[in-house]
Amino acid sequence: MKAALQYTREHNDDYLGWVKNLCAIPSISGDPNRADDIAEAVRHTRDLLNNFDFQTTIHETDGNPVLTATWHHAAGAPTYLVYGHIDVKPAGDRSLWDSEPFEPTLRDDWLICRGSADDKGPLLAHVRAAAAWLATEKRLPINLTFLIEAEEEIGSPQLVPFLKRHQKDLACQGVLISDTGMFADGWPTLTCGTRGLLAKEIRVFGPNHDLHSGSHGGAVANPANELAKLIAGLHDQNKRITIPGFYDDVFRPSREERDMIASLPFNDQEYAAELGVPKTVGEADYTTPERRTIRPTLDVNGIFGGFQKQGPNTIIPAHATAKISMRLVPNQDAAKLSRIFDETLKARCPDTVRLEIIEHGACDAYAAPFESREVAAARKALSEAFGKDAALIREGGSLPILPTFRELLGADSILIGLASPFCNAHGPNEKVRLPDLHAGAEALVRLYGYLGE
Amino acid sequence: MKAALQYTREHNDDYLGWVKNLCAIPSISGDPNRADDIAEAVRHTRDLLNNFDFQTTIHETDGNPVLTATWHHAAGAPTYLVYGHIDVKPAGDRSLWDSEPFEPTLRDDWLICRGSADDKGPLLAHVRAAAAWLATEKRLPINLTFLIEAEEEIGSPQLVPFLKRHQKDLACQGVLISDTGMFADGWPTLTCGTRGLLAKEIRVFGPNHDLHSGSHGGAVANPANELAKLIAGLHDQNKRITIPGFYDDVFRPSREERDMIASLPFNDQEYAAELGVPKTVGEADYTTPERRTIRPTLDVNGIFGGFQKQGPNTIIPAHATAKISMRLVPNQDAAKLSRIFDETLKARCPDTVRLEIIEHGACDAYAAPFESREVAAARKALSEAFGKDAALIREGGSLPILPTFRELLGADSILIGLASPFCNAHGPNEKVRLPDLHAGAEALVRLYGYLGE
Repeated sequence: MKAALQYTREHNDDYLGWVKNLCAIPSISGDPNRADDIAEAVRHTRDLLNNFDFQTTIHETDGNPVLTATWHHAAGAPTYLVYGHIDVKPAGDRSLWDSEPFEPTLRDDWLICRGSADDKGPLLAHVRAAAAWLATEKRLPINLTFLIEAEEEIGSPQLVPFLKRHQKDLACQGVLISDTGMFADGWPTLTCGTRGLLAKEIRVFGPNHDLHSGSHGGAVANPANELAKLIAGLHDQNKRITIPGFYDDVFRPSREERDMIASLPFNDQEYAAELGVPKTVGEADYTTPERRTIRPTLDVNGIFGGFQKQGPNTIIPAHATAKISMRLVPNQDAAKLSRIFDETLKARCPDTVRLEIIEHGACDAYAAPFESREVAAARKALSEAFGKDAALIREGGSLPILPTFRELLGADSILIGLASPFCNAHGPNEKVRLPDLHAGAEALVRLYGYLGE
Repeated sequence: MKAALQYTREHNDDYLGWVKNLCAIPSISGDPNRADDIAEAVRHTRDLLNNFDFQTTIHETDGNPVLTATWHHAAGAPTYLVYGHIDVKPAGDRSLWDSEPFEPTLRDDWLICRGSADDKGPLLAHVRAAAAWLATEKRLPINLTFLIEAEEEIGSPQLVPFLKRHQKDLACQGVLISDTGMFADGWPTLTCGTRGLLAKEIRVFGPNHDLHSGSHGGAVANPANELAKLIAGLHDQNKRITIPGFYDDVFRPSREERDMIASLPFNDQEYAAELGVPKTVGEADYTTPERRTIRPTLDVNGIFGGFQKQGPNTIIPAHATAKISMRLVPNQDAAKLSRIFDETLKARCPDTVRLEIIEHGACDAYAAPFESREVAAARKALSEAFGKDAALIREGGSLPILPTFRELLGADSILIGLASPFCNAHGPNEKVRLPDLHAGAEALVRLYGYLGE
């Protein structure tokens, strides 16, 4: 292990080159025009793994290809699956970026680029850890399977059928994933759960075309006003979600878990200042870290309708749309809440407009066991590599694949976060902190070693 | 008068050519790139008036030019001012038009083009009426001044200073305007009042950039959710506007006026079907025609913020914006309500986001006297030309210039509507009904005659 660690430390720049090269490929899964870039990113990652004695396969699917890479020569040792994704979200509004979204840019300790934190940088830290073992010891202490997909950001539509087809080949003792955030910069973090997700699009239709608000104002329902009313009605004054039964199944955190969350330093004023909001706000009786991780939420992601350019244009819009995401917590049933959400909105929508609801994804929350040999090994590896005890947290985001891995592979997942809490995944100026990536790679070298003991 | 009427009837095609030529010029006052088109539309109209013995002047201003044309040779006869505008709204979403917005297109009885109804077609009906008198009788029965501006659709910022500078030259007994709608196709209509307007833009700012709704959802206020709440709070369950004091000064229509409105045929189902809405809806205790004309309203004209493309993108938007128009009725004070509106929203907006309010225009409603020689002459002229008694109505839209004419010229305005209630001014497929324009021109020939008697 010593040699592998030494090797890792001496190859920071090589690794940075890998991340930059992969990040430069705009592999946006949500954009059909980017299929070539997706294919290139998959081939590029395969070629990288081929350098290190992995047996690689690009599997065509009905969607984007899936890449697997195996090294299964550690007789008697357990097998682990490393899961990651090389697709990214669209860059969004270019004007909000300080540099080109797909031109990897170094600033101080940071690499700024779409995909740098989610998930190209952290995924390649696993490749780097494996490479360090193979370059120095000519072996890995465990059997390793890389499962790398290119549709995570659009809900992984092909992954479940793929897992079903390859269930046997992908058999493993546990899944290792680095696609979560760190509690704080420089603070190693093991994530024990993720929130679920329910994403909806609400479309309210009124007149068959935009109307003059003078000629018709007051006589017909305005789709934008009605949409605003529907949205406003989704929260009560205590910031609780008003969908009937929404909280019925919500898991109640133990005193221990709340104490553990409270034991981690967090400053509301600093957090608010970092995000640029006047103050934090949320559900009563919960702290900000709790609101971000163990409580369900409902947010408008986007809203649009009618005249959106400069100046006035006094029309009644023909229709108005809102995209909404809900984050769910353990024990909430996404499929059930999806039905209740639709029924509730349909019941609340007046008959003076027409309502359409589209679903953009639903997945349950995931809770990993706190006590397992994998968690113990990861805590040890992280604490040694970062020189600091690892934080055990839950993550506010969603990884739909976690419940699926448990169901189809019978394996739990360990989430080793290497992204800053301010990495701004999905937003402009996405960035990753290089010291954390480097220390993270060392932790993974150790983790593979401990898992093989 | 007979000869002038005969001449009018014989020149339908010439007139249609005038309208088409003027409509083909995209004189969009709201688009700074269209300054040349504005100038061309002004020159084009001046050249047309020059053919008929008018003395024309193009007056440069700090904004778009103003065109005046005078024929003041009817010694002893009263002087009237014809006001109109040759600027238009932007075409808006091209995909919603069935033909090119600035290619005048004939379909059945309709001419379809931006500006055909608002206000190029109706304005040129006045030119045509004057031309018919001058071509046949070599004189007009009244002294006539055309005042034609090119900034009406952006709130006429130069018109008040212009009126102040030229108050003496523009002195008149009354103002004649054809920039309103007809009660029904083929139904001659005299409008006795217009609603006022208060146009606002509400901007809600939250985090300094779009946030991941998983990482931060539940901990910070979402600007789009807060905007929806502000908008929803502007109406109560009875569709009444909740701004304090909003209804305090609202004029109460007389029993006679409500009876007059009720006497005009109107079918809610047909109206709803024409607009494509499931049903009409509005303030309790008022009919649809009343809601459209003598009651104040509040409508969202446009709303936008966050992710607006296809599919999901689960962010918390950094900001969200809504454009809102209120239509005011006589006795409401637009300036006072503007202040109250701002104060109310500021008081209602939580301190977890930042609010900005921009004003996009404010004008009072206008109520013309029902009994005057001008109204009597116009009713007679319209009823004879259309073979049907003229409807006396109030208009739901706004003409900010009317209170100004009264204030600066001491003159009331007669509003002779020639646009269909379904002309879709400001929207896609704006259109004008040619039989109404032709009969309207005949009515104006008569009106000029009766006013000169």
